[in-house]
Amino acid sequence: MGVVYLNGQYLPAEEAKISVDDRGFLLADGVYEVTPAYRGRLFLFDRHLARLERGLAEIRLDFDASGVQEMKRRLLRDNDLDDAETALVYMQVTRGVAPRTHAFPKDPVPPTVYAFAKAFQRPAPDVWGRGFRAITYPDQRWGRVDIKSIQLLPNAMAMQAAADAGAQNVVFLREGVVTEGGHANLFAVFDGTVVTHPADHHILHGVTRGFVLELARDLGIPVQERAFTVDDLARADEMFYTGTTTEVYPAVMVDGRAVGDGTVGPVTRRLHAAFMEKVGALVAA
Amino acid sequence: MGVVYLNGQYLPAEEAKISVDDRGFLLADGVYEVTPAYRGRLFLFDRHLARLERGLAEIRLDFDASGVQEMKRRLLRDNDLDDAETALVYMQVTRGVAPRTHAFPKDPVPPTVYAFAKAFQRPAPDVWGRGFRAITYPDQRWGRVDIKSIQLLPNAMAMQAAADAGAQNVVFLREGVVTEGGHANLFAVFDGTVVTHPADHHILHGVTRGFVLELARDLGIPVQERAFTVDDLARADEMFYTGTTTEVYPAVMVDGRAVGDGTVGPVTRRLHAAFMEKVGALVAA
Repeated sequence: MGVVYLNGQYLPAEEAKISVDDRGFLLADGVYEVTPAYRGRLFLFDRHLARLERGLAEIRLDFDASGVQEMKRRLLRDNDLDDAETALVYMQVTRGVAPRTHAFPKDPVPPTVYAFAKAFQRPAPDVWGRGFRAITYPDQRWGRVDIKSIQLLPNAMAMQAAADAGAQNVVFLREGVVTEGGHANLFAVFDGTVVTHPADHHILHGVTRGFVLELARDLGIPVQERAFTVDDLARADEMFYTGTTTEVYPAVMVDGRAVGDGTVGPVTRRLHAAFMEKVGALVAA
Repeated sequence: MGVVYLNGQYLPAEEAKISVDDRGFLLADGVYEVTPAYRGRLFLFDRHLARLERGLAEIRLDFDASGVQEMKRRLLRDNDLDDAETALVYMQVTRGVAPRTHAFPKDPVPPTVYAFAKAFQRPAPDVWGRGFRAITYPDQRWGRVDIKSIQLLPNAMAMQAAADAGAQNVVFLREGVVTEGGHANLFAVFDGTVVTHPADHHILHGVTRGFVLELARDLGIPVQERAFTVDDLARADEMFYTGTTTEVYPAVMVDGRAVGDGTVGPVTRRLHAAFMEKVGALVAA
């Protein structure tokens, strides 16, 4: 993984160690963020930073984010990712090292900040064009997944279940309602209208989700942010995911049953093309 | 903290470091256990081990637990805790070090095993005898808190809110239903009957909880495992918590309102005495 960032230092990944008493390791007491970079250019950086700062405020963790942009750029540079077509910078902030108690440390300790950069792979166009498979999975995550915390055990279990089933993602169901996917928001298309779960406490407020909703509005595609059930989903014409590394990602099968006619639909293709155009403009700028 | 255990080694706490890419640190992909020791004797060890093994099975994490008892004893010995009145051994197992993905590592990696031992303090008898204060707090934890995972951010936020309010614990409320406390199960007494939430997916299946229920039955105290609401709790005669380091712990005030007559009640006192007698018998054996 090359050079990583840990608490102000840039060092080889294999030398990056933390104390066993880090509250990230003992209590999952921290938040994270993943920002995409195309040809070395950070995409929607301000929105990702704003979400990180909101999450930190929600969990009452003080952190000075003023150096984040420079740190991410340096990680991209030091890992030879300035020419990579698609890369990401992962970053997490935890409440630091302290003797284990549930309540916050009585005497404040510095947060632990870890970040790394790496390339990510887009699916090949023909693979994308055939679409992906998903399984439904109970959404047993905590009640504040709008906070991008490092509590990802249920996500890990869900994505492993998907992999075991030969699928690439999940449809999280909370009492029958479709919330989102594994590290991706979920959209369905009904009669030409793009529908996705409202940005409340039960979904991540995806940066790509918000961006794609704006693209849809720009294209004159009707949009509704409302909850829908797994039974509704069975009647959808199209389904797709959005996410930082997922970008716009078509799903054509859920639990072995075709979505719509089982092919990647026209609305998904239009939004994907619009998204790729924005990325192209960023890179050309 | 003296000598800790990490992946087969006993080493000074300050030298115990893990990789930043441990799945415990990145994804909270692990479980933990806290076992009490009185005068160096592990208490209810088999039940704690059984719960650890159940949790590992639930999250599909392979781990050979055959050496756990010896490891815990050595940690007590090496930290001069064999004569401590009250000590604990903390232990956690995570899914090891691997490049970050939600799904489990494709090629299995060894789990990360961390453990430490330390003394814990009982409240002084006069402090115990006055009882403790709690606040209600929304139970926003995940849907499988019967798995003792290291996802404890909501618990940390709740216990910090309690501390901010000058209270010592919380009453977690899930849609108005009292589930449990922060790292402790919660009991109420109504007309001489001890009532606590059923051991389903919404509470930890506390070892001390089960032990105290047995003590109550032995004493002929009526017991019911059923859900009750925060409104019911307002009509309770007594309330107490149980837990590994909490033992039997009376609460006399919730959100500034007295429970019953605001003093530690007779049922709580009987169960606490019975519990302390069992501990005494262990130490004398």
